Amino acid sequence: MSHYYYLCSNCGKDFPAYKIERELIYLCPSCGEAKRNQPLKGVLILKYDYQEIKKGKLKDKLANSKCGEIWNFPEILPLEFDRKNNNYPLIDETRLKSLSLNSAPLIKIDYNRFNLFAFDDTRNPTFSYKDRASILVVMKAIQLGIKNISAASTGNAGSSIAGICARFGLHSNIFVPKTIPESKRIQIQAYGANLFIVDGTYDDAFDLCLEVSNKKKWLNRNTAYNPLTIEGKKSAAYDILIAFNQKIPDNIFVPVGDGVIIGGLYKGFLELKELDLIEKLPRLIAIQSSGSNQVVRYFKSKKFELQSAETIADSICASVPRNLYMADEAITKSGGFAIEVSDEEILSAQKEIIQKFGIFIEPSSAASFAGFKQAVSSGLCTGNELNLLMFTGNGLKDMNSLKTWNKNLKAKKFEEWLFDLNE
Amino acid sequence: MSHYYYLCSNCGKDFPAYKIERELIYLCPSCGEAKRNQPLKGVLILKYDYQEIKKGKLKDKLANSKCGEIWNFPEILPLEFDRKNNNYPLIDETRLKSLSLNSAPLIKIDYNRFNLFAFDDTRNPTFSYKDRASILVVMKAIQLGIKNISAASTGNAGSSIAGICARFGLHSNIFVPKTIPESKRIQIQAYGANLFIVDGTYDDAFDLCLEVSNKKKWLNRNTAYNPLTIEGKKSAAYDILIAFNQKIPDNIFVPVGDGVIIGGLYKGFLELKELDLIEKLPRLIAIQSSGSNQVVRYFKSKKFELQSAETIADSICASVPRNLYMADEAITKSGGFAIEVSDEEILSAQKEIIQKFGIFIEPSSAASFAGFKQAVSSGLCTGNELNLLMFTGNGLKDMNSLKTWNKNLKAKKFEEWLFDLNE
Repeated sequence: MSHYYYLCSNCGKDFPAYKIERELIYLCPSCGEAKRNQPLKGVLILKYDYQEIKKGKLKDKLANSKCGEIWNFPEILPLEFDRKNNNYPLIDETRLKSLSLNSAPLIKIDYNRFNLFAFDDTRNPTFSYKDRASILVVMKAIQLGIKNISAASTGNAGSSIAGICARFGLHSNIFVPKTIPESKRIQIQAYGANLFIVDGTYDDAFDLCLEVSNKKKWLNRNTAYNPLTIEGKKSAAYDILIAFNQKIPDNIFVPVGDGVIIGGLYKGFLELKELDLIEKLPRLIAIQSSGSNQVVRYFKSKKFELQSAETIADSICASVPRNLYMADEAITKSGGFAIEVSDEEILSAQKEIIQKFGIFIEPSSAASFAGFKQAVSSGLCTGNELNLLMFTGNGLKDMNSLKTWNKNLKAKKFEEWLFDLNE
Repeated sequence: MSHYYYLCSNCGKDFPAYKIERELIYLCPSCGEAKRNQPLKGVLILKYDYQEIKKGKLKDKLANSKCGEIWNFPEILPLEFDRKNNNYPLIDETRLKSLSLNSAPLIKIDYNRFNLFAFDDTRNPTFSYKDRASILVVMKAIQLGIKNISAASTGNAGSSIAGICARFGLHSNIFVPKTIPESKRIQIQAYGANLFIVDGTYDDAFDLCLEVSNKKKWLNRNTAYNPLTIEGKKSAAYDILIAFNQKIPDNIFVPVGDGVIIGGLYKGFLELKELDLIEKLPRLIAIQSSGSNQVVRYFKSKKFELQSAETIADSICASVPRNLYMADEAITKSGGFAIEVSDEEILSAQKEIIQKFGIFIEPSSAASFAGFKQAVSSGLCTGNELNLLMFTGNGLKDMNSLKTWNKNLKAKKFEEWLFDLNE
């Protein structure tokens, strides 16, 4: 018998692990729906025997762990684990350990004396938060004996799964919209992925990936669709607890596109509360670009309407947030809120973070800082509480956004510079 | 009295720290020379009281440390350290710790059953090995009360010092040749550096940086010229010892441009030997591109002749290796050798490493793997010994090299893909 099972986030039915995994089922077999241009219905979440876990050593292990080794807690991971030999069967331990994430992710952000930190996930193995999901999906594929993984992506998820597959010798098949930034496309190809460039939107790529993967029996890593993406992304909640020495922030500002990062964080904190490791949930605050604000609109109206999305923060550009309902639950039940910021505010926040703190973030990450400023100035939260910004992707992956605020300097001859500078 | 002093690598004279540092002296006051288009003469190295250190706890600390926290060993760093309070005066500890390097840098490279590992420095704070030097230089500047740092760079060193300066609120002034890859230029500017684009070579930029920095009293981080660059780069020797559990490899393959990384590694291993922490030096093997092979030629002829350099591996492109003499000493005295590989071999090695092992290296890093293959096939070393490749820079910084081996795929409509893939 397995130490975990799957539960539908919509209808509440539960399913044993063997049934879901052997048949490569992703959404709830009872009510799940992946309709074109609609958020997913019946997203599955993982559940464990929390009473049993509480009797074990998780609390002590967390107090003595460093950040970024998400595989150190097999009791809360949906993988086969060999307690006797203390390893994951079939998984090369050396390669796994080489995938350690940032071990010192916290950076104090000095800004008007606020109590503000950033959580830096830009130095992960493929340089984004998505690695948290990809590592778990790849470990699962290896244990299931599947050699091909697929995913739809605007860039980060694709390069993440391609890179982690490369590390373990698996094949990746990535479906991207033709608007993907060139450098993100090259990164995915560089990792040796099979690339499918769809003459359409991310949502078209998402749907195509579902159809093809089902037929080919590829393990699908589509975000939210594969429950392990949410499960992998919960690991940041554990890392936050470790980084703050068994405390957690009052407010966490999360860039939101598909809603899987915020959904994963929520899942992680809920679990920590169920395990009596924290007393209350942090408020999860969703930040979107005004050009891609589906979650903000749904949070207010509880209605989803298709509307095309466009923002310079391509990693949070989603006209159909696949994990919309769970994202909304994460915001609402944690006492958080959802706000939107302009692309100009995002670029200005990016500049400020890179120049004042030396963290090379991409625009979507900067949205969290822009959102923090807005939340404080509108009185939605106080800067005196403990605040955390999630930095989820590396700016090197898409230099185009940086070109807009970099001067083009003229090359001068040696002697000319000397003349100028000796003045 | 200080716990360290400066020693000339050429004439062997020694100098007290206060004299060198207060007067911003870089090369040996007795024989030092920084001539245009010549390797530096009289490069200074740091020395400590090794007998005294041996009485202390360095050995135990190394056995219980994780990689990437180079500031954990103040006894072998040329900085003021407060033993009572266990900190570096004037240096913000939170910011310092946020600069932790890769904590799990070793990756096993499966290649024809050879005993081969890679050391991954591509996930450092600014994504290159240069951070090891920059962190030390910035700490020194803070303790000396200097707010401006300068450097000449082909890209990595510049973005490294610019990024580390940004983290600590210092100003950076970077001199680059106009041939700098666009993405590296943008990265330097993004960090808010003052950028001087020189209509000339890297060597022109190097000389200009010296002249201007002397006049402006900026702390100069020019590689090799500032002894702390070599000293910072020695830290990888300590990290290698930690990573291999108090053992070291037989052979280390090092991409070589200016010769500072190999010089720094040599310094580090010499020190470890002097401290009885290792029994013998690893062989240091210099790998260069045939388009920039000054160190290889000097190793054979012991003569330096100016010759313009050109290679796709821009981080190891140096027509005048400033640390030539120390690099040659490192190779010779460690029993190593120097070989050159073609740009084609470099690109092919880059492709192999990224696709088979998921490490996103830049071309200069790949040179180490190309060099390893050549060394084995020419019988210069046996693959059965423990071999280590140094991966010193991230491929995201210069995507142009990757474009050459990435197919340009055509975007297809959703229906066309489905048709193709359902066949």
